[in-house]
Amino acid sequence: MTFDTIIKGGTIVTAADAFMADIGIRNGRIAAIGEALEGAGTVIDATGRLVMPGGIDSHVHIAQPGAPEVVMAEDFTSGTIAAAFGGNTTVMPFCLQQRGQSLREALKAYHAEAEGRCHVDVSFHLILTDPTPGVLGQELPALVEEGYTSLKVFMTYDDMVLKDRELLEVMAAARRTGAFVMVHAEGYDTIRFLADALEAEGKTAPYYHGPSRPVAVEREATHRAISFAEITDVPIMIVHVSNRQAMEEIERARRRGLNIYGETCPQYLVLTEEDMDGAAMEGAKFVCSPPPRTTEDQAACWEGLQHGIFSVFSSDHCPYRFAEDGKLTAKAHDGFRWVPNGIPGIETRLPILFSEGVKKGRISLNQFVALTATNHAKTYGLYPKKGTIAVGADADIVLWDPEMTRTIDQADLHHGCDYTPYQGLEVTGWPVMTMLRGRVVTDGETLVNEAPGGEYLARERSPLVEGRQAL
Amino acid sequence: MTFDTIIKGGTIVTAADAFMADIGIRNGRIAAIGEALEGAGTVIDATGRLVMPGGIDSHVHIAQPGAPEVVMAEDFTSGTIAAAFGGNTTVMPFCLQQRGQSLREALKAYHAEAEGRCHVDVSFHLILTDPTPGVLGQELPALVEEGYTSLKVFMTYDDMVLKDRELLEVMAAARRTGAFVMVHAEGYDTIRFLADALEAEGKTAPYYHGPSRPVAVEREATHRAISFAEITDVPIMIVHVSNRQAMEEIERARRRGLNIYGETCPQYLVLTEEDMDGAAMEGAKFVCSPPPRTTEDQAACWEGLQHGIFSVFSSDHCPYRFAEDGKLTAKAHDGFRWVPNGIPGIETRLPILFSEGVKKGRISLNQFVALTATNHAKTYGLYPKKGTIAVGADADIVLWDPEMTRTIDQADLHHGCDYTPYQGLEVTGWPVMTMLRGRVVTDGETLVNEAPGGEYLARERSPLVEGRQAL
Amino acid sequence: MTFDTIIKGGTIVTAADAFMADIGIRNGRIAAIGEALEGAGTVIDATGRLVMPGGIDSHVHIAQPGAPEVVMAEDFTSGTIAAAFGGNTTVMPFCLQQRGQSLREALKAYHAEAEGRCHVDVSFHLILTDPTPGVLGQELPALVEEGYTSLKVFMTYDDMVLKDRELLEVMAAARRTGAFVMVHAEGYDTIRFLADALEAEGKTAPYYHGPSRPVAVEREATHRAISFAEITDVPIMIVHVSNRQAMEEIERARRRGLNIYGETCPQYLVLTEEDMDGAAMEGAKFVCSPPPRTTEDQAACWEGLQHGIFSVFSSDHCPYRFAEDGKLTAKAHDGFRWVPNGIPGIETRLPILFSEGVKKGRISLNQFVALTATNHAKTYGLYPKKGTIAVGADADIVLWDPEMTRTIDQADLHHGCDYTPYQGLEVTGWPVMTMLRGRVVTDGETLVNEAPGGEYLARERSPLVEGRQAL
Amino acid sequence: MTFDTIIKGGTIVTAADAFMADIGIRNGRIAAIGEALEGAGTVIDATGRLVMPGGIDSHVHIAQPGAPEVVMAEDFTSGTIAAAFGGNTTVMPFCLQQRGQSLREALKAYHAEAEGRCHVDVSFHLILTDPTPGVLGQELPALVEEGYTSLKVFMTYDDMVLKDRELLEVMAAARRTGAFVMVHAEGYDTIRFLADALEAEGKTAPYYHGPSRPVAVEREATHRAISFAEITDVPIMIVHVSNRQAMEEIERARRRGLNIYGETCPQYLVLTEEDMDGAAMEGAKFVCSPPPRTTEDQAACWEGLQHGIFSVFSSDHCPYRFAEDGKLTAKAHDGFRWVPNGIPGIETRLPILFSEGVKKGRISLNQFVALTATNHAKTYGLYPKKGTIAVGADADIVLWDPEMTRTIDQADLHHGCDYTPYQGLEVTGWPVMTMLRGRVVTDGETLVNEAPGGEYLARERSPLVEGRQAL
Repeated sequence: MTFDTIIKGGTIVTAADAFMADIGIRNGRIAAIGEALEGAGTVIDATGRLVMPGGIDSHVHIAQPGAPEVVMAEDFTSGTIAAAFGGNTTVMPFCLQQRGQSLREALKAYHAEAEGRCHVDVSFHLILTDPTPGVLGQELPALVEEGYTSLKVFMTYDDMVLKDRELLEVMAAARRTGAFVMVHAEGYDTIRFLADALEAEGKTAPYYHGPSRPVAVEREATHRAISFAEITDVPIMIVHVSNRQAMEEIERARRRGLNIYGETCPQYLVLTEEDMDGAAMEGAKFVCSPPPRTTEDQAACWEGLQHGIFSVFSSDHCPYRFAEDGKLTAKAHDGFRWVPNGIPGIETRLPILFSEGVKKGRISLNQFVALTATNHAKTYGLYPKKGTIAVGADADIVLWDPEMTRTIDQADLHHGCDYTPYQGLEVTGWPVMTMLRGRVVTDGETLVNEAPGGEYLARERSPLVEGRQAL
Repeated sequence: MTFDTIIKGGTIVTAADAFMADIGIRNGRIAAIGEALEGAGTVIDATGRLVMPGGIDSHVHIAQPGAPEVVMAEDFTSGTIAAAFGGNTTVMPFCLQQRGQSLREALKAYHAEAEGRCHVDVSFHLILTDPTPGVLGQELPALVEEGYTSLKVFMTYDDMVLKDRELLEVMAAARRTGAFVMVHAEGYDTIRFLADALEAEGKTAPYYHGPSRPVAVEREATHRAISFAEITDVPIMIVHVSNRQAMEEIERARRRGLNIYGETCPQYLVLTEEDMDGAAMEGAKFVCSPPPRTTEDQAACWEGLQHGIFSVFSSDHCPYRFAEDGKLTAKAHDGFRWVPNGIPGIETRLPILFSEGVKKGRISLNQFVALTATNHAKTYGLYPKKGTIAVGADADIVLWDPEMTRTIDQADLHHGCDYTPYQGLEVTGWPVMTMLRGRVVTDGETLVNEAPGGEYLARERSPLVEGRQAL
Repeated sequence: MTFDTIIKGGTIVTAADAFMADIGIRNGRIAAIGEALEGAGTVIDATGRLVMPGGIDSHVHIAQPGAPEVVMAEDFTSGTIAAAFGGNTTVMPFCLQQRGQSLREALKAYHAEAEGRCHVDVSFHLILTDPTPGVLGQELPALVEEGYTSLKVFMTYDDMVLKDRELLEVMAAARRTGAFVMVHAEGYDTIRFLADALEAEGKTAPYYHGPSRPVAVEREATHRAISFAEITDVPIMIVHVSNRQAMEEIERARRRGLNIYGETCPQYLVLTEEDMDGAAMEGAKFVCSPPPRTTEDQAACWEGLQHGIFSVFSSDHCPYRFAEDGKLTAKAHDGFRWVPNGIPGIETRLPILFSEGVKKGRISLNQFVALTATNHAKTYGLYPKKGTIAVGADADIVLWDPEMTRTIDQADLHHGCDYTPYQGLEVTGWPVMTMLRGRVVTDGETLVNEAPGGEYLARERSPLVEGRQAL
Repeated sequence: MTFDTIIKGGTIVTAADAFMADIGIRNGRIAAIGEALEGAGTVIDATGRLVMPGGIDSHVHIAQPGAPEVVMAEDFTSGTIAAAFGGNTTVMPFCLQQRGQSLREALKAYHAEAEGRCHVDVSFHLILTDPTPGVLGQELPALVEEGYTSLKVFMTYDDMVLKDRELLEVMAAARRTGAFVMVHAEGYDTIRFLADALEAEGKTAPYYHGPSRPVAVEREATHRAISFAEITDVPIMIVHVSNRQAMEEIERARRRGLNIYGETCPQYLVLTEEDMDGAAMEGAKFVCSPPPRTTEDQAACWEGLQHGIFSVFSSDHCPYRFAEDGKLTAKAHDGFRWVPNGIPGIETRLPILFSEGVKKGRISLNQFVALTATNHAKTYGLYPKKGTIAVGADADIVLWDPEMTRTIDQADLHHGCDYTPYQGLEVTGWPVMTMLRGRVVTDGETLVNEAPGGEYLARERSPLVEGRQAL
């Protein structure tokens, strides 16, 4: 037989094109795109469906070690199953270096978590919290060679924050090794200053998470991170941008000729600060950082997606159960400071962007594919193996029903969390089949293959480290 | 046999992707893209070549009627042969309505010029110079339905300039009919005022063409055109933008939420106002409108291409011979005002952008394809039949040698003009085969098919008239 | 005796300073400012009062000829009495050249209107509606020498609009003669286009005056006027700026190094487009051009005053009675197009700016003086004779009670109009005495001197025509 | 006699006005401004002179304790004599709190340095380097009440830098007490990072002082300081702004409605980074922080002065001798890091701004007065006692010869430094007499009064802490 599988009759969508054709899959890769392909053991009818590259979620937190009193509500099994049901075929969680730990130790432990549990492909970013000369001078260069080609730094959080000098040293090391740097841009000192002041006034409800990290905090850190990138001459990705002012910092930097990239997330498109104002600690369900902002900032984030200021759209999936060692630990009632920062989203990212973006005329289908798959692959060194529908690429494909209307409901989701912040949101457009390297993972209803088929992906260096690139 | 022709071993490039695969062509269309395709009468070896959609030049002047003392140096035969040698498969010249003439009359005459002479496909924009109620109320709606879906208006030139009220009426008619409007944005009155003043000072050499239409003249008209588009609620394309200030007007309009598009041309990337300062009337070779500006403005135009402010890159091919009823009529010696405005460029557009853009790292290969082909097709209602390498699209393909270095030389060109303003420019990257609907037009050396195979293309309405679109 | 009059015990305010001192007046001029001055026939107690330069209103329309069916509700008698009661000592109305008329003829007629009727000093700007070569080449140079050093051009209104070429020629003539140019920046063709469209839809109520001249109309004309000023190399004043976008055009021009000045008026600070939406033609009371905009635009106008983008604050007093040959002619009921454009404001300008600006902390006392007096004098060639409290200056002085609260009421006003658009507005701060060249015109209650003491002022060229000046 | 002294026949210039009048002085204050004043023991002929308020230099370093190996080249005797010869009547040096020291201790020591040595009036800003709870909670509130109403914080320098949290706490304390905050905005960590890198490359000459603190370093710190001011809701003054990008941060902050003020200095108008590139350590003469930049940045600083983005123009006088325990300590030869940061300028500030600004048409005479005197007084709580020519103000007056041309020469200067960075600069306009509270300090040639007559000035709170103010 010519092909293992043929997908017939669908509309193929890439970051640039949309056209009707069949796809022939052989040995897990796309072998042909053509009219009236024939000769396969399996034929999948895609009539009326969009046939798109499987989503790549380059910003998720799975099984990440953290504070002892809170357990992350996701291991690699549940996380990758949820990803697949959400139309994704690759996810990129973070391997966290704990202070005092070597990167190798952290990676060893994290690979052990993932091993044998992944239903979609995975690859790891490094989080550097202890950038010693040894880490930057010996470990990092070797690991970049081995395919760990991206790393993330934090400008806030007690257990992860880097000092300014450390940020500069990490960026300089990235410059030398070709690693690509992601930055969580919120300012530690200002947050602490404001949180202390709010607590002194007795303002401890989850709602005050927002006022403890206002737009100025994020904008300042964004400007600082960009300045450090300018000084060390490296491109960086500002992750999870939540508002207009921070976005404008990125835009202004580009006009000065810098290669600064931006990411935004579903929470900044459909949630607002008001969501954190629920009674009986309900607001804790929406506590993430940066916090959701205003409807005006939502509009700004849409503009950023439309005009290419944001090149990737990720979930920042960071799930903590609402109850039971999750958001509502004993301490959380003492103050917003103790509510774990993070919300789930791995399974709902694509439907939200499709429904609010494509169906409402804000972005094109091509932009949808670029923002959810292609640009992730190009940014993080997985392209052209991942992220597009092209001959030679892995057959990582999602079949999408553009007309199916559903109401997001926790009862229907597969993630490890006990709630979704998008409960009740009606969306049009839903993934009805997810295929990983030619093998169906889910048909939209059931987990077709119980056996985890995901692999770990070593990556090339990001082409963005080589100079100006359009995304 | 499965295919008529197979192109083997090349690297296919689209506006989003680049990958190695073969292309199978059947009945003039791309029937398959795949690994190791077989079964064709003709196999073309594309090893080491880029395989890209044939260039679409959406802004050319061919056989356009004009002043009696000057003859346009291009008919459809020479123009479309030159286009093919330059890697193009579709060109879009302008059908000029002369004052007092109906659009139908103008079209009839212009079709007669094109009929049987085209070596690449052609489609016509309308130029409206006499927007009577009958033209706007009866003719235009019917012609849009018939596939003449774009029109151009001029804000300068004695024989074409529209008054402000006429511009508004044309845009309002475009709003009603779904025609897409292109605007030549330079201000008539200011140019006349300045030209009179320069002449009064005896400044009549070709060089003074530049000072007679400074940046402020173009920026003002651009702002005015955008304001009229805002008032009538239509998207418009500002053609041939030459400088930073005009570009910024487009950018600011977009930030206000308007759908304003921009085009730039080779002359604004590699020529400057100094080129018009040659001895013995040599400067006349570079006289076009808007005039080339400064190197700083060149940098701005590159930024516009990089950041998507300019979505199409055209030649504004408008050839007048240097001698013999061309640039140097008797009157031309009396003053720059009599030097025909326009320079040739249909054959050199792609090599210049490839060499100066892709090879010098300013734009990506994907941007090259988007700017020279895909976005033209999407803007003007030819997509997905034209403008991309995709199954079902016309097999309009250029094979490109990315490493071939050539020096642009009038002796090698095929256009009807007796000079090229790019004489002596060394470029790397050259089209080595152009194929129209599966049929080889030129192999880079010779005109393979003497018989003109080009067709006239009726077009769909531009999708841009329906709302915000990414290009 | 040393002085004719001494003003004792007040707080003198200039554009830069505020301090307690007495003022000694001799022969109509300020002879001394000092502590405990003595030796005068008349001593005025200014305890608790601000002692400021009398207001200069550089933009008023008085006894201006116009359409036969409408009579301007103000002659020089009523207009200058109202001005004095409003705290002003100089007003600058416009001498309108009617088409076909010479400037001399227009001036002769206008001087005849003013002669013997003025209770404050007056000076005339010229309005050019027929800029023939003779007007620009002969009349204007002579008149500038005689002290008519400013002129205004209109970009709209049937009977006054200049074509683009005419605007350029006038500005070029201003460049040669040193005249200072004021521009009414709204676009004629766009207004006609929109008004026709609104009328075609039956939208004829006064409210639609606003939609017939939206912000884009004013912004476009502002940009155009600035471009013409750039091309002819003259400074200009954009009068009566109503909104943020037009203001930003001025600001951007300055950043390019151009000397562009701006004026705003009370109607753009306290009225909005909603005011034109009254029942029974009440909206006509607020019809002026440009029209009042939104509260956001009000905020922008305040920013413009705060940051010096607007250097003069004028009334644009242009009074038409509401009834009886005023706003409500027979034709006015047929459509907003026939409602005369203009509202009264000569008597309420200062209290509105003081109350809304100084008392609400938006501007300082010094800015108040600069915006209402000093900058007018400096801009239009009257400084230092007029516009400040300084030794040697004319003793044109207003005594101001900064704590008096009044409700603006037509019954209390002295202008010739039968209504005020500010009816019912409560203001704090009111002029309690106005003195012209040392002579009390009004004590805030009565017209102290029945005999008109105002003089005509020939002016120097504006220092702004000589280069960059801070205002 | 009526007056102690009369200044006759000069042209009085204030921040708003210029007019000819006499000044009558009584008991050290201006008692009258008038025509033909009479009755004084002393009459000073000011014919042909500008009579302006004495300069206020609100940013000078005198007798400031520092590194043991370097001695500041100025005590209060030499510093205030030089100030007087430079046309100044008030200077405001910094009282430096050393770490571990109380503010009271620092003040006691600093007052002892000044006591009995001042030839012009002085007032002290506080420099906080150790903002303990006691300092912020007890000492500062009391000291503000006593008239120490301004304080400065440093974002760089080993011995003075505050951490981000400390900056926030100081600003919050300023908010509570009404102190006005000045910020030295350069980023400590980035400077150290870059300096280490330059040294590692052997780039240790004084020239590399510039590359160790590029524009991005200053812009980042400026943005950070402004963000902290936004978060704590206080106005701040960004001192010694050197370049366009930092200036634009101030401008953008104002557009967001923040009360951010800016200062620039002579070195940023007439020096460039190239000046630090001299042979044989000559470059050390120009080492100050921020460093001089490019001619484009000079142009930007002029724009900032013209448009009011910079409201005060100070010297940042910080003199270190070139030889002998000055710039060229033993260590300085080891690297630019050891060259003391600072240059003299107290005596040349006014002539440079007058010559380069007023005489070259960049700023008006009124702006000159505002930038050198009035705005300093208004900003720092000395107005109206200081900073203007007005009745009741201290008779602090400089007589200025606007036509005197001199070449700046170290041999002519009175400061304690052994060089001037402006050696050889030709200026037009020079102070020919300086009078402090009615007493002549210098006649331009000699120190008329050997006995120091300067006093210490306790100050009011800055009016800027109360809300938006125009300067």
